[in-house]
Amino acid sequence: MHLIDLKVEADLLLKNKEIARKNREFFEKNGIKVVNIMGAIGSGKTTLIEGTVKALKNSLRIGAILGDVAGDSDFQRISKLGIKAVMINTGKECHLDANLIYQEVSKFHDVDLLLIENVGNLICPTDFYLGEDLRVVMVSVTEGEDVIEKHPEIFRIADLIIINKISLADAVGVNVDRMESCASRLSRARILRMDLKEKVGLEEWLEFIRGVLNVSGNSREG
Amino acid sequence: MHLIDLKVEADLLLKNKEIARKNREFFEKNGIKVVNIMGAIGSGKTTLIEGTVKALKNSLRIGAILGDVAGDSDFQRISKLGIKAVMINTGKECHLDANLIYQEVSKFHDVDLLLIENVGNLICPTDFYLGEDLRVVMVSVTEGEDVIEKHPEIFRIADLIIINKISLADAVGVNVDRMESCASRLSRARILRMDLKEKVGLEEWLEFIRGVLNVSGNSREG
Repeated sequence: MHLIDLKVEADLLLKNKEIARKNREFFEKNGIKVVNIMGAIGSGKTTLIEGTVKALKNSLRIGAILGDVAGDSDFQRISKLGIKAVMINTGKECHLDANLIYQEVSKFHDVDLLLIENVGNLICPTDFYLGEDLRVVMVSVTEGEDVIEKHPEIFRIADLIIINKISLADAVGVNVDRMESCASRLSRARILRMDLKEKVGLEEWLEFIRGVLNVSGNSREG
Repeated sequence: MHLIDLKVEADLLLKNKEIARKNREFFEKNGIKVVNIMGAIGSGKTTLIEGTVKALKNSLRIGAILGDVAGDSDFQRISKLGIKAVMINTGKECHLDANLIYQEVSKFHDVDLLLIENVGNLICPTDFYLGEDLRVVMVSVTEGEDVIEKHPEIFRIADLIIINKISLADAVGVNVDRMESCASRLSRARILRMDLKEKVGLEEWLEFIRGVLNVSGNSREG
């Protein structure tokens, strides 16, 4: 027995999809490429956005939307890099939804690239398409070797899977090859190993982002 | 605007509370002490249950309910220790609820201690009282120094807060004192530093569990 009414859930997702389409129209009309970055707390989403902004802000107009249940520490980190950034505190909600993004999109009408950091977990953001071009799912090796098999749905919808903090793999007793083969079984997404403190993977990531910017109209509907 | 109907949410939580009371009655009638262990993916919940079972299974009858979206790796780890264990796969749900527990409680009628591992995130389990005696919230330093301030609600309802994997604090650039003082501001819960690989904190945890077993009728309603 599910306590939540399935009809209510279906209505909710339908409504989300409608608003996501409006976001999508806005992004296409204004030539904005949008990347939705998902992952558990501590997987490295904010650090990845920081690295991206530092590397690309002189050649691109970048915006960021930072989603969290509470607090503004991510917003503080990103806005001091001198780009347009907005914090969305979801209160009790465990994901961003299209409507929350819709309230903010007009502020980003003049950017080339909008990076959205979703709320930190590998479950709830899965079903909520925001109107983005691409979906990135990050995991840190510190989440355990079995983190991917425990959350198959979010990896199935990913366009890029990042396995992060690989320099800590030995310290936490994790075999990165096994994580990667689990990801390959679930998804045809590209898989990228990363460790930003050790400068591993940033160049490949930036190349991926440049690819997103050069390929137009590659939208995916959730 | 919230897309989810507030009335639906209130009904859901009310129904959950009713079933949690039935669980509570069952636990009290059978002299079972129940600990609900919450925390993000990789915070160390399963390892803590493993350590507890190994240390106490000769003197206590212990059961475990392991919640995850998918997969049975935690169940495999715990059931091979020779205790009664049940896996609950929630599918798309980001938390256990009282009804999911209610379906399983009769299997545990003869245990002294039931350890429940909730689904891995710091958001959704907050509102769902299961009928437990005590709530434990675990965080790993790898989740970032600001993990506690980003998730105030779950720390407010905790009876014990565990800051885990402290031996990795330097490697991930986290100040454990700052995490602890943030926890103290939010909650009057006892705070325990832990690193099970380094044998830090296990004795204090076992002492806490022995306290739970010796104090009767200390139930908390969510």
